[in-house]
Amino acid sequence: MKEELGTILRAMTQEELPLEHVTNLVQEIEDDEDLALLLESLPIEDRLRAWPAIAPDRRLNVLLKTRHDPRETILDSLGFEELDALFDGLAADQLIELSETLPNKLVERALRLMDAQQIQYFEKAQTYDPEQIGHWVNQNLLMLPVSGKVRDALRTIKQGVPNYADTLFMINRNGQYHGAVKLSSLFDVQSQQALHELMIEDLPSIHAESDLQSAARQVLQSGFASLPVVDNTQKLIGRLDVLTANEIIEEAYESKFMAGAGMDEQEDLFAPVAKSIRGRSVWLGINLATALLASWFIGLFEGTLEAVVALAVLMPVVASMGGIAGSQTLALIIRGLALGQVNQDNSKALLDKELRVGAFSGLIWSVVIAIVASLWFDSAMLGLVIALAILVNIVAASVSGLFVPIVLKRLNFDPALSGAVILTTITDIVGFVVFLGLGSLFLL
Amino acid sequence: MKEELGTILRAMTQEELPLEHVTNLVQEIEDDEDLALLLESLPIEDRLRAWPAIAPDRRLNVLLKTRHDPRETILDSLGFEELDALFDGLAADQLIELSETLPNKLVERALRLMDAQQIQYFEKAQTYDPEQIGHWVNQNLLMLPVSGKVRDALRTIKQGVPNYADTLFMINRNGQYHGAVKLSSLFDVQSQQALHELMIEDLPSIHAESDLQSAARQVLQSGFASLPVVDNTQKLIGRLDVLTANEIIEEAYESKFMAGAGMDEQEDLFAPVAKSIRGRSVWLGINLATALLASWFIGLFEGTLEAVVALAVLMPVVASMGGIAGSQTLALIIRGLALGQVNQDNSKALLDKELRVGAFSGLIWSVVIAIVASLWFDSAMLGLVIALAILVNIVAASVSGLFVPIVLKRLNFDPALSGAVILTTITDIVGFVVFLGLGSLFLL
Repeated sequence: MKEELGTILRAMTQEELPLEHVTNLVQEIEDDEDLALLLESLPIEDRLRAWPAIAPDRRLNVLLKTRHDPRETILDSLGFEELDALFDGLAADQLIELSETLPNKLVERALRLMDAQQIQYFEKAQTYDPEQIGHWVNQNLLMLPVSGKVRDALRTIKQGVPNYADTLFMINRNGQYHGAVKLSSLFDVQSQQALHELMIEDLPSIHAESDLQSAARQVLQSGFASLPVVDNTQKLIGRLDVLTANEIIEEAYESKFMAGAGMDEQEDLFAPVAKSIRGRSVWLGINLATALLASWFIGLFEGTLEAVVALAVLMPVVASMGGIAGSQTLALIIRGLALGQVNQDNSKALLDKELRVGAFSGLIWSVVIAIVASLWFDSAMLGLVIALAILVNIVAASVSGLFVPIVLKRLNFDPALSGAVILTTITDIVGFVVFLGLGSLFLL
Repeated sequence: MKEELGTILRAMTQEELPLEHVTNLVQEIEDDEDLALLLESLPIEDRLRAWPAIAPDRRLNVLLKTRHDPRETILDSLGFEELDALFDGLAADQLIELSETLPNKLVERALRLMDAQQIQYFEKAQTYDPEQIGHWVNQNLLMLPVSGKVRDALRTIKQGVPNYADTLFMINRNGQYHGAVKLSSLFDVQSQQALHELMIEDLPSIHAESDLQSAARQVLQSGFASLPVVDNTQKLIGRLDVLTANEIIEEAYESKFMAGAGMDEQEDLFAPVAKSIRGRSVWLGINLATALLASWFIGLFEGTLEAVVALAVLMPVVASMGGIAGSQTLALIIRGLALGQVNQDNSKALLDKELRVGAFSGLIWSVVIAIVASLWFDSAMLGLVIALAILVNIVAASVSGLFVPIVLKRLNFDPALSGAVILTTITDIVGFVVFLGLGSLFLL
């Protein structure tokens, strides 16, 4: 799959291809998600050149699979006529996904082209926040009244079984979820049998106000391909399937990974330069502030640095060893927090463990560094000073790596986003102050 | 779910609970995966105390859901009698997962307790490398000869439909995959109808030698709940379902996240101290080497530092701004490489974009820093020197953030693992050398 993408990418970016040739290349890609990946990997001008080569009936699906920022570059380039072609016969869930990147005016334009049922679905979904699973439910269901018979179910099934629908949901006359029947249990039963006799009542339902990740986990843990989603009156409003659950989990991981560099998971590989600069400058600005803070602390020891220049030479070693040790604990704890495995109850036991790990590995590395530094600068006292500083900094880093994300989480900040910056600020400052402080005491 | 886990965790770690109470708490957790998460989040002694409280018939499943390192701590604590109880009636795919953490001797012990069919499945799976999907296939299939009739299918279905089996696979008399029939197409057809008439031939099959991630993507893109896996003679050897596909993708993300700190995704939150130290020391050692290298470069400018101590104070600002700018490009490119979106064909266009982003944001930040530094140290020349150094370093960082992961990938190293360390080594050295070099030229 990826190799195929590479070949096409090569052909498309190497030179100005005639549209006809581009069309042939694009048609070779059978999967809409792969096509979305290809669009994302093209510089904007090539991307806009490839877009019209996509068969009109695939365009909407491709766009839905594209990440927000690159999707915006395409939507922005389209005229009303092309937009209307996309919007024609739009389903509610498609508009919900599109509306993430569509200005309100265009959402209204799309709504005018949709049928009444889909508009109603769309409005229902809008009553939930995008952080709640109710916003994202699949409203394409196999659904029957609880009083139904097997033959009713067979009639419904005959009209088509949507992907990942392995059960049929039963509702009472108020539309409340009542239970589910496995499709596979409908073989080999009498057509006049009452459906409720086949009901499996242990299929869990998801509350529409659940957050996306815990709803996704529920589906993945259930063993079923979809779970029903109900509102707070128990009314069945849709289902969540394993594929959407997987997408939710993937997006969360991607977001955590990109957040580590202060970036958004929807970022376009070929974002316009001005947009990139704006997006990245927050992080650079925060870093500048923390780096200047660290420098201010170094500045307190100007006299010492002037007298013992070896301290200036070795400063970065002390800071970075603390940074690395802290980031290891940090990664472990951020993962634990995301999995719900770390909280105030086992944090004492974790502190105990991380302190031991920090103390012992601090000891080991400080001996190594002491030897290197003593030999390099021919000063046993300098070796002792750096050894102590490294030991203190690695221990401080282990403790910070544990508590920084826990405190951030408690304050409702995302530890994956700001954890690393706060941690390295701490390890830089502790490292510099202890190293230069000890240097002032013992080396002047 | 997570709150429940928290309450139980609190009760279990707060004090020495009598076994009976632990049993009650553990029984409250209905899902095996949640129980595995709980075990992982307990310090080792608590974990081993909770283990016997798990109902014997759940133990195997819980263990299979536990990450490798914590699973090992439990397996290590079990006697032969308990191990045999776990191994009794073990299925091939369970042993394959267990064997990731089981010494060979115990795998042999388990094999002695398995039935012939499962042993055969196990041995078949062993012919594939754990990096190939053939090693991990689910051998619990709905499978029928291509000459079969609908009634044969119904008979098979009656014996039970496994989770995520939405199609029935047809094989010819050599066991080769021939096509699939949707279960939902078996309603409302005559029982004597030939199955091959219902066949959908467009269901893709996966090659057993595919790597895990591309196989998982194929399943997730297919719209089906499972895809058939075939060996290189087209023989059907099993299936890959959406749940396993999701697990593969999740493990890859977790691995990428943990690799950023030089750690393994199987790492135990409460790993024994000695093991933690060993695991983390590689990374600390590599960092020490690169930090000393950077220090060596600083050492070349000892005279300059002695004369202009402000340079020592501001050094970390130059290095860290480069580090942050580089890590942003790095994150974008590592994601792009993982998605197959970045290769030598669009790297020229990416270089063009990243160079512009680097140049402009370098300019902006160097002006800001120049003002701060000139005012702080009352030296316009120092401001100019640091501005130039920041500009050069941010541009160098953007280029390195792009090419370091591309080159690592080409050399078959994991960019998520070693990218950051190499990048910051480059930005540290470039930052120090340019800043101190310019300082020597203009400030002495």
